[in-house]
Amino acid sequence: MNIHDVDARLADILRDRRRRLAEIFAAPVVLWSGRRSPRNFAANTFPFRASSHFLYFAGLPLENAAICLESGQLTLFIDDPSPSHTLWHGETPAKEEIAQKIGADAVLPMAELPAHLAGVATIPVQDAATWTEQTQLLDRWVLPERPLEGIDLELAKAIVTLRLIHDAGALAELRKAAAVTINAHKAGMAATRKAKTEADIRAAMEGVIIAENMSCAYASIVTIHGEVLHSDRYHNKIQAGNLVLADVGTETATGWAADVTRTWAVTGKFSSTQRDIYDVVLAAHDACIAKVSPGVEYRDLHFLAATTIAEGLVDLGILQGNVEDLVERDIHALFFPHGVGHLLGLDVHDMEDLGDLAGYEPGRTRSDRFGLGYLRLDRPLRPGMLVTIEPGFYQVPAILNNPEVRTAYQDAVNWERLMQFADVRGIRIEDDVLVTEAGSEVLTAALPTKAEDIEQLVRG
Amino acid sequence: MNIHDVDARLADILRDRRRRLAEIFAAPVVLWSGRRSPRNFAANTFPFRASSHFLYFAGLPLENAAICLESGQLTLFIDDPSPSHTLWHGETPAKEEIAQKIGADAVLPMAELPAHLAGVATIPVQDAATWTEQTQLLDRWVLPERPLEGIDLELAKAIVTLRLIHDAGALAELRKAAAVTINAHKAGMAATRKAKTEADIRAAMEGVIIAENMSCAYASIVTIHGEVLHSDRYHNKIQAGNLVLADVGTETATGWAADVTRTWAVTGKFSSTQRDIYDVVLAAHDACIAKVSPGVEYRDLHFLAATTIAEGLVDLGILQGNVEDLVERDIHALFFPHGVGHLLGLDVHDMEDLGDLAGYEPGRTRSDRFGLGYLRLDRPLRPGMLVTIEPGFYQVPAILNNPEVRTAYQDAVNWERLMQFADVRGIRIEDDVLVTEAGSEVLTAALPTKAEDIEQLVRG
Ligand SMILES: [Mn+2]
Ligand SMILES: [Mn+2]
Repeated sequence: MNIHDVDARLADILRDRRRRLAEIFAAPVVLWSGRRSPRNFAANTFPFRASSHFLYFAGLPLENAAICLESGQLTLFIDDPSPSHTLWHGETPAKEEIAQKIGADAVLPMAELPAHLAGVATIPVQDAATWTEQTQLLDRWVLPERPLEGIDLELAKAIVTLRLIHDAGALAELRKAAAVTINAHKAGMAATRKAKTEADIRAAMEGVIIAENMSCAYASIVTIHGEVLHSDRYHNKIQAGNLVLADVGTETATGWAADVTRTWAVTGKFSSTQRDIYDVVLAAHDACIAKVSPGVEYRDLHFLAATTIAEGLVDLGILQGNVEDLVERDIHALFFPHGVGHLLGLDVHDMEDLGDLAGYEPGRTRSDRFGLGYLRLDRPLRPGMLVTIEPGFYQVPAILNNPEVRTAYQDAVNWERLMQFADVRGIRIEDDVLVTEAGSEVLTAALPTKAEDIEQLVRG
Repeated sequence: MNIHDVDARLADILRDRRRRLAEIFAAPVVLWSGRRSPRNFAANTFPFRASSHFLYFAGLPLENAAICLESGQLTLFIDDPSPSHTLWHGETPAKEEIAQKIGADAVLPMAELPAHLAGVATIPVQDAATWTEQTQLLDRWVLPERPLEGIDLELAKAIVTLRLIHDAGALAELRKAAAVTINAHKAGMAATRKAKTEADIRAAMEGVIIAENMSCAYASIVTIHGEVLHSDRYHNKIQAGNLVLADVGTETATGWAADVTRTWAVTGKFSSTQRDIYDVVLAAHDACIAKVSPGVEYRDLHFLAATTIAEGLVDLGILQGNVEDLVERDIHALFFPHGVGHLLGLDVHDMEDLGDLAGYEPGRTRSDRFGLGYLRLDRPLRPGMLVTIEPGFYQVPAILNNPEVRTAYQDAVNWERLMQFADVRGIRIEDDVLVTEAGSEVLTAALPTKAEDIEQLVRG
């Protein structure tokens, strides 16, 4: 990003964040930004992605930098570029200019960092060069995969407290990410008319994001095999009769994410079976969003989605029996084997690097229940939280062809009726929903969800 | 990639490669493929990129796999996907099917690998999880940044011997990469008419690569600041009068790269000063390519480029004096501060992970001479080598405004005349040239280089 484009309000936003941190966490904190990870050789790297915790408090994706936060004061550690760096990478802003943009109280070269590490808490950074440096300089293990302990665990809890509730600065970025993502999905729908493969549609969608000088917040899913939940392949030819499931989200230059899924028919027109299931998923989506409000348990939204889907499938004759009993038996998880959503912020699964510390209210842990183990969020909603709502319906062979599953649910599923819906491999509808004092605001509401509107966008 | 799309000839290509390895290297070899590197949290990774050495002998980008090569025999170590992997990632080919496609003589689960490591040579993989595993299993340091020693160094030399000379299988992939890259550049030129920013042009170019279900071989350079040699920023607005320098290359699904640069005017029409310099750079480009032939020293091509550029700048009145003397004084490096090119193959700087082992003929080392330190290749050319030819002209402030430089070259540069060329920040013309028995073949020849042809492509 260009230093001159940095919003003048950034320094105030960051000052407020570190003031709030100081109120709930007394020890000094040092957060590293990280370094580029090598791809096939040292000089050919993946794009730089700064640590999300660093971005939260430092605001800018500075490479190989660190910040010290203490009593609301910010010290930035960063080196001026070497002459050879300038030759190859051009003039970059002086560290004093960066410090001014983020409202740092002091700026020092990285060589000074070791003298400022007594008693500090930190969070491990993902790249090996950086966690190695953290481990060496702090003289204790600081590893991404290691459960946090002691002062670092306390820091993580404090950061969760702040990052759970998005401030105005965060929301401005999250709205930008949502807006670009909406355009990417519209471009994907429009490109479907001429597309021959999944890759053609992906190119149209990611092209919108690249043209905005932003990144993908996660590996795009653009597939006619919506039943492959984390598909990262794009080679399939698309044909009339297929549904395209596209889960594509933008990340802004300072790291804030959107996470949106739409499902559409290649021809523009859903078949009657596709439309039936689409409307079941949409009913679950709409029911959950209507309920988003402070105090509501996110876990209850998951069960609302499950119940709505089960009801819809009973109405379609795919399931049989009493809906409450069916959900009690986790029957929805046959077709909806993931959670209804997750936190969203600087990470697409926000703060997942901290395990379930962010997603699960203190004292709660993941269930091993079939329909609940993948629930990533189990907290009461509070104003300022941003969550996804993303119910789905999938015919996953690994589940539906499992003999144990078929035996267990023999009475509850009309397998013959289900076969009539063979042209529905996977449907998901996902939006980004902000909890507000008054209830909720769908940040991605400008992207239609109704079947007719989606058909219109595809057919142009 | 899709296992069903794997070329039936792959097994023979790989069998031939390991037979040739066995002829020059006796010890058993184990090569790891590598793992995904985390981005902002463990489950949100960068795209997988297998180790190039693994790809050379295993042919497919298999994640978390290893191969043992011994006396021309191939044993593949890979695990079948877990049931939960199948749930999230869909059905993947059985390891027996993969083994058959690559002509493996045996296939074993990864748990068997430790029993096959006695006396093996290896090459470090770039990602930390894998080099940690290599280090632990082999009980010696195997680190990407550590100079190779002993048996590993001998293996690296043997691999260089093979990978320097591209076989038919490699060339088929390299031609695919070249073809897609040519289309990407044409799309970038065409998109310039409506583009508002560098990012718009980048999106059009990378969109072509994504639509082919391929990757970028390196971070694209798409900039109006061509003088920033490794620019990876795309935020600038483009305006009439600007030149766009685009260095964008495709990598095929099995890892083979193209590396192409073109420079064009935003309006389609070069100014007279831009055209003058463009033609100087093109003359250097054409002169070097005309000389590519077995036995020619690549370093001589570098000096040919330097001399051609110096001559052209003398003709334009930018330089003054005897051309031979000027080149002797490294004057060309004021405007052309990098080498004329490098090896190209599975890596955009092929085998750069092995330091200068591939680029420098045994016994030769890098010069510390101003005009030569960045020369990445210093070998006599041989049939089957693929090299880039990429002369350029840049006005780099860090060089031209350096008082020492201005003093040293005071007599040789007409600084006032140079100021008349202020609208030429950077021009590079780069093609991928295969050394053949008869001389050379430009794999990227279908992308024009002549100024008029480029103008035509931009104006449409
Ligand atoms: Mn999501
Ligand atoms: Mn190059």
